[in-house]
Amino acid sequence: MLSRRNPQLNAHGELIHLLSIEGLPREVLTHILDTAGTFLSVNQREVKKVPLLRGKSVFNLFFENSTRTRTTFEIAAKRLSADVINLDIARSSTAKGESLLDTIANLSAMHADMFVVRHGESGAPYLIAQHCAPHVHVVNAGDGRHAHPTQGLLDLYAIRHYKHDFSRLTVAIVGDIVHSRVARSDIHGLTTLGVPEVRVVGPRTLVPGDLRSMGVRVCHDMAEGIAGADVIIMLRLQNERMSGAMLPSAAEFAKTFGLTPEKLALARPDAIVMHPGPINRGVEIDSSVADGAASVILPQVTFGIAVRMAVMSIIAGNEA
Amino acid sequence: MLSRRNPQLNAHGELIHLLSIEGLPREVLTHILDTAGTFLSVNQREVKKVPLLRGKSVFNLFFENSTRTRTTFEIAAKRLSADVINLDIARSSTAKGESLLDTIANLSAMHADMFVVRHGESGAPYLIAQHCAPHVHVVNAGDGRHAHPTQGLLDLYAIRHYKHDFSRLTVAIVGDIVHSRVARSDIHGLTTLGVPEVRVVGPRTLVPGDLRSMGVRVCHDMAEGIAGADVIIMLRLQNERMSGAMLPSAAEFAKTFGLTPEKLALARPDAIVMHPGPINRGVEIDSSVADGAASVILPQVTFGIAVRMAVMSIIAGNEA
Amino acid sequence: MLSRRNPQLNAHGELIHLLSIEGLPREVLTHILDTAGTFLSVNQREVKKVPLLRGKSVFNLFFENSTRTRTTFEIAAKRLSADVINLDIARSSTAKGESLLDTIANLSAMHADMFVVRHGESGAPYLIAQHCAPHVHVVNAGDGRHAHPTQGLLDLYAIRHYKHDFSRLTVAIVGDIVHSRVARSDIHGLTTLGVPEVRVVGPRTLVPGDLRSMGVRVCHDMAEGIAGADVIIMLRLQNERMSGAMLPSAAEFAKTFGLTPEKLALARPDAIVMHPGPINRGVEIDSSVADGAASVILPQVTFGIAVRMAVMSIIAGNEA
Repeated sequence: MLSRRNPQLNAHGELIHLLSIEGLPREVLTHILDTAGTFLSVNQREVKKVPLLRGKSVFNLFFENSTRTRTTFEIAAKRLSADVINLDIARSSTAKGESLLDTIANLSAMHADMFVVRHGESGAPYLIAQHCAPHVHVVNAGDGRHAHPTQGLLDLYAIRHYKHDFSRLTVAIVGDIVHSRVARSDIHGLTTLGVPEVRVVGPRTLVPGDLRSMGVRVCHDMAEGIAGADVIIMLRLQNERMSGAMLPSAAEFAKTFGLTPEKLALARPDAIVMHPGPINRGVEIDSSVADGAASVILPQVTFGIAVRMAVMSIIAGNEA
Repeated sequence: MLSRRNPQLNAHGELIHLLSIEGLPREVLTHILDTAGTFLSVNQREVKKVPLLRGKSVFNLFFENSTRTRTTFEIAAKRLSADVINLDIARSSTAKGESLLDTIANLSAMHADMFVVRHGESGAPYLIAQHCAPHVHVVNAGDGRHAHPTQGLLDLYAIRHYKHDFSRLTVAIVGDIVHSRVARSDIHGLTTLGVPEVRVVGPRTLVPGDLRSMGVRVCHDMAEGIAGADVIIMLRLQNERMSGAMLPSAAEFAKTFGLTPEKLALARPDAIVMHPGPINRGVEIDSSVADGAASVILPQVTFGIAVRMAVMSIIAGNEA
Repeated sequence: MLSRRNPQLNAHGELIHLLSIEGLPREVLTHILDTAGTFLSVNQREVKKVPLLRGKSVFNLFFENSTRTRTTFEIAAKRLSADVINLDIARSSTAKGESLLDTIANLSAMHADMFVVRHGESGAPYLIAQHCAPHVHVVNAGDGRHAHPTQGLLDLYAIRHYKHDFSRLTVAIVGDIVHSRVARSDIHGLTTLGVPEVRVVGPRTLVPGDLRSMGVRVCHDMAEGIAGADVIIMLRLQNERMSGAMLPSAAEFAKTFGLTPEKLALARPDAIVMHPGPINRGVEIDSSVADGAASVILPQVTFGIAVRMAVMSIIAGNEA
């Protein structure tokens, strides 16, 4: 998907769009995580506001609906003092038959500064980044099965926050790997930052063997998958996979791959449990685990705001 | 519903949530009304903006839709310089099966400062206040048949504005009392502030005799109900009650309990007429009364913004 | 429709509402275009924000949905530092049977400063302007088939920008003239500013002969219509006209009146091509023309923001 030159970076190697973690050098990832750390403290102040994006127009373009993710970007942009415009895409000109690129060209002509794009088709944010005006920056908020880079970055932030050093970790990602843009972004990030063992864990229908080409260990056995893990990332089981050809049933999945206290006991004693949310209690994760001492699910949400503020402020500061 | 200690007040007796007028001491109510008076003048300035909630994130969580009420809170929060996020609850994670408390925990983790909650279930704002992080404040914008405290407060403000002294008043509330959270909030507020006679007026199906336990006089006869009243609060007749078991018909109700100039003549000559809106012209109120000299329906709307600014600024300034 | 005194102007002849270009004197139009010029440079700054509407509450009241137009007003108002409230009219009290004027009275009582109104009925913004409080200003964002004055103004701005002098121009407006509020606003503006020849071009069903009373030349032949034109304004062919009694088919219309490079060659060599958007590529305009050297369609969008900022700031500064 990436052309020879990474379209996310300018000629100086600086980030101008965030489209995917794949292909980003370690220094860029580390710079984002470091910057997020400074915004974490902004979010704990009385006045949670900095003027970095004052007078900038940020457009939320959610072609696929996600209230939660849109909200996190909206909060992040407002805390940077940007003007935020939520486009109701389902009712917009796109619905009147206008092409995606014509919509983008029109919004660019309004002097947009940033597009936050969620789209059901993999690659849509790339297409937008390649065609929009040079002063416009694009953030991928999830495209098809391809990537969800800000979720990946907040996962990296959480892991660094609790585990400090990537170079000795075992990270297990459990669930529907093959359909998950979160898993894909996590794997690219963890690999780039030097995690020696990344495991993907789930049934053969959701975790096919050819994932090995991404540099991960494929486990179809839950006990093997989480044994000795430092970090367990549970993925949400999408409703549409809960029945049919992919899975016998949600109950069956829960029994085999749902994270219970018993299974968690196989991981390292100081293991942390992560989840991108929203969680299906009793399906991929037991309530006692989600609310337990190992869970960092709510801190992930907190880190997510800081990471999005970091990404937006970094790309807005770099010239194309 | 209230536990022994009032969850709306902190250990110093200061307001930290606004959940219900019930249980609030007279001094707290008076403090809100006094503060609203200062915001009324802000709203008449050229620049209708004060920085009291600058850098705070206010979330409108309307599980039950109400564009008008949401708008009043949105304006109030923006005039206090808050960042306002409207959540489209119908499309959000709650719709994906996430529990109310998980949604609240997630928004709290984003460093929300305030939730403005409307919910079809009585008590939902209490549940949220009991479970959210200590830095988060909750305002009840209407829960089931239970309470609508900001509407009650703006009614109190209007009455004080026009009548000055609560201690000699007769207030008649007319219409569907039993299903009305507005009536319930009004009754608690009027009683606390020392109104000697509060009457509830309507047919037996909508004004049952056991309302007497709230300290009000129950009238099934309209003439008796408004005779000599200083204040008449007409309630909106909800469409869903206009036919069926509760009422023979809207026309029948209008004939018996609708406020016409003839019936209004039974009240005191300086009586004021109030209504929470939106009005059904020709059903519970005649156009000539709604638009007449006694009507303070539009000033109520004006006071409503000032009262909501007062509530938000007071609770945001108090530590849990 | 206009009463004797133009309701858009105060006793000093200053603009207090923008309801229609019809009836506005040349100096008022020129003042708006001049002011827009200064805002064009604001929109090119790093910080695209001026404090002219700080503390003002601007309500977008779109009774007819249009995401694009609403967005342009929202951006314009935010760049003027206003608080913007988008009302979801379809779900609001109007949907509960409240009358338009009661809704307006209520919003005025909230100390609204400006209503941006789109409505399916011609004249609705006039009705609102006649009934709202004196401190409230109304901008017509499109009413029925009547007027779309900000679109007309941005078209005038574009023509002045590229052609400088109105007094020697031939302007051809092509398409469904009879149903187009854009065409009507354009014609009034071009006539007032002294364009000697305005042609309306299209089939008899969409361009009836009685349009001549507006001071335009009616052409049913495309070659005649655009021969020697300096400016060609192509209108969007609405889906609902593409079949049925009005037109044999979209393909038929495209063949006869769609703007192709061959037809464009009949105009002056330096002719510009305009379109209010969103465009139907291959119907009223060929892609090679829309994206070609003569097209100023995207600059129109840019000018549109500046024109809306100009209109809002001018009317907000004038007393009723």
